[in-house]
Amino acid sequence: MEDTLAKLPAVILAAGKGSRLKKEKYITPKPLTPLLGLSLLERSILTCCQAGVKEFIIVVGFMKDKLHSHIEELRSKYGLSILTVENSNWESGNGTSVTACSQHLTGPFFLLMCDHLFEPKILEDLITADYGAGVCQLAVDRNIDKPSELKEATLVQIDEKDIRAIGKGIENPDAIDTGFFLCWPLLFSALKKAQEKGDGSLSGGIRELIGTGQIRAVDASRRFWHDVDTPEDFNQGEKRLLERLKTAKRIDGPVSRYINRYFSIKLTRLLAPYHITPNQVSILSTLVGLFGAACFFSIGFLTKWPPLWIWIVSGLAGFLVQISSILDGVDGEIARLKLRPSPYGAYLDYMLDRFVDGFAVMGMVYGTFMLTGNFMIILGGFMALLGLPLSSIHRAKFLAEAKRNYLDEDDGPLRYLPYSRDVRLFIVFLGGVFNIAELAIYLLAIVSNLVALLRLYTVKKAMKN
Amino acid sequence: MEDTLAKLPAVILAAGKGSRLKKEKYITPKPLTPLLGLSLLERSILTCCQAGVKEFIIVVGFMKDKLHSHIEELRSKYGLSILTVENSNWESGNGTSVTACSQHLTGPFFLLMCDHLFEPKILEDLITADYGAGVCQLAVDRNIDKPSELKEATLVQIDEKDIRAIGKGIENPDAIDTGFFLCWPLLFSALKKAQEKGDGSLSGGIRELIGTGQIRAVDASRRFWHDVDTPEDFNQGEKRLLERLKTAKRIDGPVSRYINRYFSIKLTRLLAPYHITPNQVSILSTLVGLFGAACFFSIGFLTKWPPLWIWIVSGLAGFLVQISSILDGVDGEIARLKLRPSPYGAYLDYMLDRFVDGFAVMGMVYGTFMLTGNFMIILGGFMALLGLPLSSIHRAKFLAEAKRNYLDEDDGPLRYLPYSRDVRLFIVFLGGVFNIAELAIYLLAIVSNLVALLRLYTVKKAMKN
Repeated sequence: MEDTLAKLPAVILAAGKGSRLKKEKYITPKPLTPLLGLSLLERSILTCCQAGVKEFIIVVGFMKDKLHSHIEELRSKYGLSILTVENSNWESGNGTSVTACSQHLTGPFFLLMCDHLFEPKILEDLITADYGAGVCQLAVDRNIDKPSELKEATLVQIDEKDIRAIGKGIENPDAIDTGFFLCWPLLFSALKKAQEKGDGSLSGGIRELIGTGQIRAVDASRRFWHDVDTPEDFNQGEKRLLERLKTAKRIDGPVSRYINRYFSIKLTRLLAPYHITPNQVSILSTLVGLFGAACFFSIGFLTKWPPLWIWIVSGLAGFLVQISSILDGVDGEIARLKLRPSPYGAYLDYMLDRFVDGFAVMGMVYGTFMLTGNFMIILGGFMALLGLPLSSIHRAKFLAEAKRNYLDEDDGPLRYLPYSRDVRLFIVFLGGVFNIAELAIYLLAIVSNLVALLRLYTVKKAMKN
Repeated sequence: MEDTLAKLPAVILAAGKGSRLKKEKYITPKPLTPLLGLSLLERSILTCCQAGVKEFIIVVGFMKDKLHSHIEELRSKYGLSILTVENSNWESGNGTSVTACSQHLTGPFFLLMCDHLFEPKILEDLITADYGAGVCQLAVDRNIDKPSELKEATLVQIDEKDIRAIGKGIENPDAIDTGFFLCWPLLFSALKKAQEKGDGSLSGGIRELIGTGQIRAVDASRRFWHDVDTPEDFNQGEKRLLERLKTAKRIDGPVSRYINRYFSIKLTRLLAPYHITPNQVSILSTLVGLFGAACFFSIGFLTKWPPLWIWIVSGLAGFLVQISSILDGVDGEIARLKLRPSPYGAYLDYMLDRFVDGFAVMGMVYGTFMLTGNFMIILGGFMALLGLPLSSIHRAKFLAEAKRNYLDEDDGPLRYLPYSRDVRLFIVFLGGVFNIAELAIYLLAIVSNLVALLRLYTVKKAMKN
């Protein structure tokens, strides 16, 4: 059964007017409204793609010509299979938009609205629930404590898993209708019945399924979803998507968590509307980091300058490295925000990081050695260069051998050593700004290698689990 | 079906005398004969474990007390579930040993002989073939071109997949009986019939299944298996197991393939009989490498020595690094030969390698710099230290992101760059023996970084596949 479900097409309703979002004159229809660099429709489609959906049927109505040309763009941009269905009758209710697809659907399908932000796991939940052939499923959210939301939302009454009532303003609601369905073609006859009674809404059709046990609820209370109806919803949606970037990565080092993310998310929001790819940001991060390294190097040629001036150059170098570290978070955030994670992007970012780390240390060593003539700095630099990549190597090798990520705070205090790249670059930053590059080099040399040696022990224990 | 088969127990026959192997007086029974560090029985059991077998029934007869105590050792050494069954009637034929297990088996099981070397894929083939409940399966080898083998072997005649005849010296044979079976309990009644006719052999029982379609052949012609009956078989078996070590690793660098393996396999053979763990060899390899690095370093303190003496120290350093490189192959070979691959062992080996690489370069740089005073060497050393781990990092990161190994000679000439660790250490070796450490440093610095940059391009193409 799950095998069949894994290949479900998704029907996305994009025919309505969405009059609550725009008070001004309509220039672009609602599904085309850009939110953090993607139109609402584009974001829906790409989120479905992440859940494994390969085929789309999109129902258009209001301002259909603009939608047709936008969908054509999406087809060629992402190489997707998208069928467009027109519903000239869209003003009679969103149920008629579903009816318009009936001839194209012979098996189960996802049904969703173009104006919902969501995480792909909701669709996976619908597949996992799998109540059997012919039973339609609606994802519901049991968080109904905010009365303001309840006024606008479609509500459902649930008995065990069976839906007992659905509609706006029903009494004693148990949950909110999220608008994500897994449907079977029998929905079409239910919609027809409702339409014959003069109810053109999707909820009307669903009501016809109540009582025969053909519509059941799937709990999606813990999932992220967000309905964009009003301008307030729109702003709130942007905010929630950005907030989610903070938690999307499982382990964030302390400097990332408490300093870098604050800036990187602001930058990501700023850059999101533009056609800037994550790889371009990775390269920018590298260039800024290399420029910082060059500033450290340059101190080697400025040994005759007054100490204050040297300090200024050193501080600039430190700042540039820290900015590079912040930008190093932006590429991943943009990739996640625009729903285009790329294995090559992750590879590129990772390899370029090694060059920035290496050159930053080399620059510090060269500058400081030329200033002081202390040969110990060179030995320290060698040890730092040896030790710096070990932490990344350790993580990649652990994953390759143990087939899982190394973490694990749960596994004991020694397992999780907060010595990720953000921390290492922060040491370089501090070395630059406080003009204590020599100390920073020794610190990197000692801690990097000690941590790697310590992990020979902790990994042994971790692999036994 | 395959789900049931995945949990099959294995019955291993170890009751016979094996009189052809030992001409001298019996001190240890045949199943206990050590071959490359493992008894024949131990190797059978561990190979089964690699195929996923979790439960064993071992039939003992001849010299059963020695077998009992050996099996007890194996139980506690590997934490295995092994049931021992005694067959006092073992001299009447190996069929009686199978009969002795009847009360312990209610479902399908693997049946094999304790004196066969084999690769786990044979058992996997038997499971994959899956002819349905109640059909016994025998793995056969269609390579019957060596007449010498045919005289001793049990032969089979096959029609499509059905076995038509089985026995020693039958006419027009199609294949050799490898001795690996997937059996169902109906075999026990067939064995009983044969025994009533006075035939106590397993082949006798199998013959009773012919004609009813209850015994079919599974082609294992491309698999490694080796029957150890005579002293010649024994030597040949050792040789074949060692030979397989050369091809077990998918990518061997050119220095490994043409130089290191020649020595490492000899060393592995030498060490196999002793209780030396792969991790101990990894640590030895590290120590030898670090000693080589120390020799390179020491040149920095011997600058007043005559050039020839310095050359000798440099050559010694180079040789030690090359020996370390050879030992770096031995740990993996021992792990594979003794059937105990360990994720932690692979991790440890990998991390320790990074230290050897780093210190070898540092040693070369220090020694050469103190001799020449040329600051370029230090810059070259920094670049070499930066570049050296990039190749390993690249491979680990590619695996983590693309979920497959990076190789790939098939993918184009630029994808496969023969710049693996064996090659890098060989450059250090050449730098040492020919006293051209400075050149070696520059070579490592330039090639390592160039290769890493080139891979940013080739990986992009590889990930598109």
